[in-house]
Amino acid sequence: MLPDRDFFDRLADAARAETLPRFRTGISVANKEAASFDPVTEGDRAAEAAIRALIGQAFPEHGILGEEYGSVGLDREHVWVIDPIDGTRAFISGLPVWGTLIGLYRNGEAIMGLMDQPFTGERYFADGHRTIYRGPEGEKTLATRACDALSEAIMFTTSPHLFSGDIKRRFDNVESRVRLSRYGCDCYAFALLAGGHIDLVIEAGLKPYDVGGLIPLIEQAGGVITNWAGGPAEMGGEVIAAGDPALHAQVLEILNA
Amino acid sequence: MLPDRDFFDRLADAARAETLPRFRTGISVANKEAASFDPVTEGDRAAEAAIRALIGQAFPEHGILGEEYGSVGLDREHVWVIDPIDGTRAFISGLPVWGTLIGLYRNGEAIMGLMDQPFTGERYFADGHRTIYRGPEGEKTLATRACDALSEAIMFTTSPHLFSGDIKRRFDNVESRVRLSRYGCDCYAFALLAGGHIDLVIEAGLKPYDVGGLIPLIEQAGGVITNWAGGPAEMGGEVIAAGDPALHAQVLEILNA
Repeated sequence: MLPDRDFFDRLADAARAETLPRFRTGISVANKEAASFDPVTEGDRAAEAAIRALIGQAFPEHGILGEEYGSVGLDREHVWVIDPIDGTRAFISGLPVWGTLIGLYRNGEAIMGLMDQPFTGERYFADGHRTIYRGPEGEKTLATRACDALSEAIMFTTSPHLFSGDIKRRFDNVESRVRLSRYGCDCYAFALLAGGHIDLVIEAGLKPYDVGGLIPLIEQAGGVITNWAGGPAEMGGEVIAAGDPALHAQVLEILNA
Repeated sequence: MLPDRDFFDRLADAARAETLPRFRTGISVANKEAASFDPVTEGDRAAEAAIRALIGQAFPEHGILGEEYGSVGLDREHVWVIDPIDGTRAFISGLPVWGTLIGLYRNGEAIMGLMDQPFTGERYFADGHRTIYRGPEGEKTLATRACDALSEAIMFTTSPHLFSGDIKRRFDNVESRVRLSRYGCDCYAFALLAGGHIDLVIEAGLKPYDVGGLIPLIEQAGGVITNWAGGPAEMGGEVIAAGDPALHAQVLEILNA
């Protein structure tokens, strides 16, 4: 039996109870050394522990791959892939573009996923068929937008410092051709892409938990997400997501030229 | 007579009524050419017109400097400095880090200011004495945080592409020494600094309306904001804001070394 939306909501609510109260708690830089943990590390660990406890109760036969507490049963049919706080640098800067990511893999393929941003009150959920948004805009089913010309595309990446050497050269080939390139959004950029607000996200050096919860959000809204070779993105690494499949194909060609 | 908080709220509410309904309205790239205006341009103009109308009724003796509709009476004692949507690239990307900026200058000095982010529901207001936050965190008086070591500082700037030539060399001298450098937040970064979440914002090429509404937010929360020469920031240009006066002095020295 697969989990339903209510179960994903329980996971996200449990994480939110640990993350949001620690957001903008403003341990000053001066006091930081006095504290044994910083708020983001505490929030990361407490949120992942809460999520794992709920999964362990409801689906003891499932495996879990988490950022903070490692892996259990990765060879099982179903594996949960969890990043309690994706975007820790945004979190410590007070910027509400971090998120809690929860993905469910079946035989290595991401089939359901959730991204929650507690401060803005936005929750993105892919149930296996469609991607649903709840937040200040109400509740709605999402669709990526058409954009088959790179010169019209809005692109996001976490940081220009993410890339070096050949990876940088390949990235620059794409970046120099887009309409608008922006930095610094981690998971929030993928959510904007699922919502049809931007066209392209390109990242490098991702871990599976950085992307596992996001893959279903993109795919079930009509987008395409792969690694730079065009293969599955489930294991992370160099990842490209596009709202329009034609744009995805075009960018893959440039990345691999 | 100076305006009170209620009057600033009326201005911000009037702007919000024009901007928020146009945010994430997702004119697709494919349809864009069919439209005579894009949503951000429409929102920018309508919001500034609404603000100017209210000021004109209540304070006909004041001057106005706005982004969209130019200047009136810049030689008067009081001048309003308005950017209806600061961060248009964030706006068109669906990213809620744009804001409405409204500043009031007296004899060229910014004495009151407001920044409103309608989607997150955050409003920052400096009344001449203190900076007040209202939003998901409740209502509170803000204070910048102590951070007198550049190596501990979190810094924001809009884009690394903002800088070139000698300006870039001077900026890089600072960026290479901070703990964390992030991009892409426009006015929202100044608000985070007023709130004590980050330590440093460095920008170049600002117009007066990009910064006029923000100066009082920084100063009345305990921070320092000047141009790179250490003079007033009211006319824009190269601007540096720091939460800790000691950090500001340190960075000015590096910028001018």
